[in-house]
Amino acid sequence: VTGGGSTVRASDAVGIGVDIGGTKVLGVAVDSTGSVKAEAREPTPQIAPMGEGAEDVADAVAAVVTDVRLALGADAERLPVGVGAPGMVDRHGVLRYAPNLQAATGADLPALLEPRLAPARVIVENDANCALYAEHTVGAGRHCDDLLLVTLGTGIGGGVLSGGRIVLGGFGFAAEVGHMMINPSGPPCPCGHRGCWERYASGAGLGMLAREAAEAGRLPNAVALAGGDPEAVRGEHVTQAARSGDEAAAAVFDELGWWVAAGLANLTAVLDPARIVLGGGLVGAQDLLLVPTRRAYQELVEGSTRRPHVDIVPAALGEHAGAVGAALVAAAGGLPA
Amino acid sequence: VTGGGSTVRASDAVGIGVDIGGTKVLGVAVDSTGSVKAEAREPTPQIAPMGEGAEDVADAVAAVVTDVRLALGADAERLPVGVGAPGMVDRHGVLRYAPNLQAATGADLPALLEPRLAPARVIVENDANCALYAEHTVGAGRHCDDLLLVTLGTGIGGGVLSGGRIVLGGFGFAAEVGHMMINPSGPPCPCGHRGCWERYASGAGLGMLAREAAEAGRLPNAVALAGGDPEAVRGEHVTQAARSGDEAAAAVFDELGWWVAAGLANLTAVLDPARIVLGGGLVGAQDLLLVPTRRAYQELVEGSTRRPHVDIVPAALGEHAGAVGAALVAAAGGLPA
Repeated sequence: VTGGGSTVRASDAVGIGVDIGGTKVLGVAVDSTGSVKAEAREPTPQIAPMGEGAEDVADAVAAVVTDVRLALGADAERLPVGVGAPGMVDRHGVLRYAPNLQAATGADLPALLEPRLAPARVIVENDANCALYAEHTVGAGRHCDDLLLVTLGTGIGGGVLSGGRIVLGGFGFAAEVGHMMINPSGPPCPCGHRGCWERYASGAGLGMLAREAAEAGRLPNAVALAGGDPEAVRGEHVTQAARSGDEAAAAVFDELGWWVAAGLANLTAVLDPARIVLGGGLVGAQDLLLVPTRRAYQELVEGSTRRPHVDIVPAALGEHAGAVGAALVAAAGGLPA
Repeated sequence: VTGGGSTVRASDAVGIGVDIGGTKVLGVAVDSTGSVKAEAREPTPQIAPMGEGAEDVADAVAAVVTDVRLALGADAERLPVGVGAPGMVDRHGVLRYAPNLQAATGADLPALLEPRLAPARVIVENDANCALYAEHTVGAGRHCDDLLLVTLGTGIGGGVLSGGRIVLGGFGFAAEVGHMMINPSGPPCPCGHRGCWERYASGAGLGMLAREAAEAGRLPNAVALAGGDPEAVRGEHVTQAARSGDEAAAAVFDELGWWVAAGLANLTAVLDPARIVLGGGLVGAQDLLLVPTRRAYQELVEGSTRRPHVDIVPAALGEHAGAVGAALVAAAGGLPA
């Protein structure tokens, strides 16, 4: 927990936000400018079978909120709490389906969280829609009313602003962009289908592409970093090798960038954003990823030489975008319709 | 030209609409309910190299409008004219890029059409957005504010309504859904890329799937209908064979339905429509196509057992949706923002 020391007062904060990620639950308190006043995190509980981990996830959210409140001090429990959840969150905050958090599939999160977080008001939204709100309000998407946000993490999330309004869809499930099928003969996805975009263009995808290269003998340095076993190569190993100037490792990021761009080009065909913001954990490797992504996007987008340029920029709020957005959404009383 | 005989009066009509398709230019006049009062058509001129056929296309549009006006009688030239064009139409009506009408790529259609159609006011929009407007206003998309329209013709067009508003995108190019890449090792597309959805799920895709089956020896009846040459098999032959009870021909429609559904499932992940309307020429084969499409969609859509059902219905206005919509858009003074 980082609370910024004795200068933090609950009265500076306007809301608490929690982002339930694939690997961690991240909580923040923010002021009205989105500036983080306190922060806490817990590992995401994942062990339970499908639908049976809802209580564990709610407990982890409550633990993070408790830590943030402690850092803020008196009156913090009156701050509204926003929660961003991965997957198909319906308009009542129920997590109808979560390929990357199967244990909480079906969870009625508001019903689970309200007693744990009382007396605070609780609002549950899709995590990437929260990140979109944050980036549009105080981040890299300001002054852009046709905005696409894509979070590249354990999976891929998305948020879409069209004409200044968030595209929620008929049931609240819009922008589940990670499950676009992009290769019918691609690898199986936890969602039950094959070749989903997030099998390639996520943290998991980086690991897969790196292991394919390692098993083909092209990544000796990354294999050495992984202890000598090609099957043990992870994203962090190929990232470290690429940063040391290993060209074969950089080539894995070129490949990753192609897959990121292929999905972004598809989304451009459907949505025609004026700007694209990339968030999520993978953007920690933006020094390696952005250049090949932009180059491949320019090749892949329809009518590229005949249309205005689309900027692809990293999320200004980085990995905090989802949690900051959840806090701002809570402070605003909900996502604007 | 069908003018409905002596009962047609220009005063019944509220607008003239023209749909520039891949094979024909279709013009209609409609009354305020979208009912067609007059109709005319011309083949689409296609012979010119890229960008050099703009005048020919404008002449064909003008010829169709002239025929519709003649059928309507006096005062018809005062009716506003809406034109639906395939591809990336910008917010000034310029056809910035048209993979299926390369000859008119770059055409400033309002500038070309206004002198030809004076004194009428001319409005140019994307063809599928016109069809969406028609189906939402008077067709199969009434009372549904989160609507996806997909036209399966020579290529694939799309229109998206989100929260009651048409998604135009940052530059007016949204819903170019045919150019989602759905198979990185798929066949080349006139747009310059590989494996676009419209290579599979269009009239052209039906022909390709039929020829693949014919060349593999699985379609003797369709080959016979094509004069004995497997390479001469077209969509119409496999359609006729399937309607005669040929199971191998029906299997081609199962395959086509799978590809249609794969793209619809992708668009559902991105847009979460409450209803999907299918239009375009291929819907003439809806008796063969809808059942396999609906079945495959149920398998392919994310979280299918955990989300509300989405109806997939044929366009009520059939092949006329684009032209009727263009006329209604003209009568309304433009697409609502």
